[in-house]
Amino acid sequence: MKCIRCREKACVQLRAHNSAFCKPCYLLFFRRQVERAIHHEKMFRPDERILVAVSGGKDSLALWDVLVDLGYQTIGLYLGLGIGEYSDGSRRCAEAFAQARDLPLRVVALEETGPGLGVPTIAASTRRTPCAACGTMKRHYFDTAALEAGVDVLATGHNLDDEAARLLGNVLHWQREYLARQRPVLQPKHPKFVRKVKPLYLVSEYESAVYAFLRGIEYVVEECPNSAGATQLGYKDVLNRLETASPGTKLRFVKEYLRTAQPVFAEVDERPLGECERCGMPAYGAVCGFCNLVLEVETKRDRLVAHP
Amino acid sequence: MKCIRCREKACVQLRAHNSAFCKPCYLLFFRRQVERAIHHEKMFRPDERILVAVSGGKDSLALWDVLVDLGYQTIGLYLGLGIGEYSDGSRRCAEAFAQARDLPLRVVALEETGPGLGVPTIAASTRRTPCAACGTMKRHYFDTAALEAGVDVLATGHNLDDEAARLLGNVLHWQREYLARQRPVLQPKHPKFVRKVKPLYLVSEYESAVYAFLRGIEYVVEECPNSAGATQLGYKDVLNRLETASPGTKLRFVKEYLRTAQPVFAEVDERPLGECERCGMPAYGAVCGFCNLVLEVETKRDRLVAHP
Repeated sequence: MKCIRCREKACVQLRAHNSAFCKPCYLLFFRRQVERAIHHEKMFRPDERILVAVSGGKDSLALWDVLVDLGYQTIGLYLGLGIGEYSDGSRRCAEAFAQARDLPLRVVALEETGPGLGVPTIAASTRRTPCAACGTMKRHYFDTAALEAGVDVLATGHNLDDEAARLLGNVLHWQREYLARQRPVLQPKHPKFVRKVKPLYLVSEYESAVYAFLRGIEYVVEECPNSAGATQLGYKDVLNRLETASPGTKLRFVKEYLRTAQPVFAEVDERPLGECERCGMPAYGAVCGFCNLVLEVETKRDRLVAHP
Repeated sequence: MKCIRCREKACVQLRAHNSAFCKPCYLLFFRRQVERAIHHEKMFRPDERILVAVSGGKDSLALWDVLVDLGYQTIGLYLGLGIGEYSDGSRRCAEAFAQARDLPLRVVALEETGPGLGVPTIAASTRRTPCAACGTMKRHYFDTAALEAGVDVLATGHNLDDEAARLLGNVLHWQREYLARQRPVLQPKHPKFVRKVKPLYLVSEYESAVYAFLRGIEYVVEECPNSAGATQLGYKDVLNRLETASPGTKLRFVKEYLRTAQPVFAEVDERPLGECERCGMPAYGAVCGFCNLVLEVETKRDRLVAHP
């Protein structure tokens, strides 16, 4: 198998792209994929400051690596979710990456901030699944960190597999509000929000893993222990089956959605956005999703104190 | 496990409906499901004449059985596709069903009608997959048979699994025109068309198989030999996986689509419909899909005669 760019021996085969690459050409291909997404979707300009949410995993570190490589002004943001050894290991990877490259990294440990609640505590004390609680919490801390850091943009490492699985879930339930918001760029709908972008949205999980490996990036390999049996993984599994039977399925599913169907749903999302009366961050109701979670935990705790 | 209606011993469990039934209650449940679909979607009235497309399989024979049972005026339509032993067996089942119940059955053998081309000949001589060619041909012969029989409605045995798989395929490619037309009732857009309905669209493959079995209906069990490896079967497979993980997935996928998303796509389908210059049936272009297929075969045959 030969590299389709330079005809040297290839080390990576990408069936969805009907391509194969040697190491240097693959790194170039990957960077260009990200660059093209940034330009095509007008994610950010070179003069803008970008907060990169890094989990210590392959996707977010590959993203940070490419953005630095392309000369963008970045700050890393690591959220310590408090999920035992998994969080310790992922923090070490994020910190090691930043130190080795002399990049600024903000670390926010959930258990030492605000109400002081990690993901396990919240998940155990509310009726949400861990993944649902974690999503709400991460969104809140991303938003507050972006506001505090005074950046223009928040970039996350969501890849094609993530986006395709989320789209499949949204489609199986036909959740029009979620479908309306599923885009690689979300413009801020409130002065306290910044633009949110997903520069890896057309890059598969496999592609970012290969990039991280070839660049010698040390990343946390373990999956989050809470994700076992998660619905999202079931969606990824069936999409991988469809992809094997017909390479390019995921890419077409996400790209065609954005091109032909998303504009139809986008018109739906017109709810007015106010501010949460507890934390002051933007909210659709009186209280934001994050404070709702915290309230649930506090109510349960108060009940336990009253009737131990 | 007890029947949820009469508390007798249950013989069927339906996880998607969180239900279990004994034989008489199951037959009642199934009939009511079909009845409700007919009334809710205003498929047809008791004074209308219905042409029921029967393949000899469980779905179409279960449908015919229920419609007769509910007192509707029906005529069966069997298309002989010319697919060797599979077609022979399915014809025997359709004829035996009609004879035993003294019901009128029209039989149209493709190889003895019009251009005299069976599915294998067409599939071998064109670049379509057998399933694509077969779909186009069946549509044409259904339409002409309904016109000749002077009925008001054409009913097919498409079940929930068929509809969910078709919806998944349409969604993976975001084919807006197909999405616009995916409804359990299609009103005729031309005087030569009749209304097309799918009374089993909320009834799973499993449910119709159980109904046919409990009613003692003899149906052809073999799958069409052309369907091996068909894309549609891959979609059914992944939907079955999602259904096992979360019972009710298929039902919700199809029902919610029709309720919340389909109206959005429905506005797209506004192409003008003329008549095919070859066969006179309605067509979007100068020649209909069926005649296009026949033309392809004839052109190829002429070439072979000229340069054998």
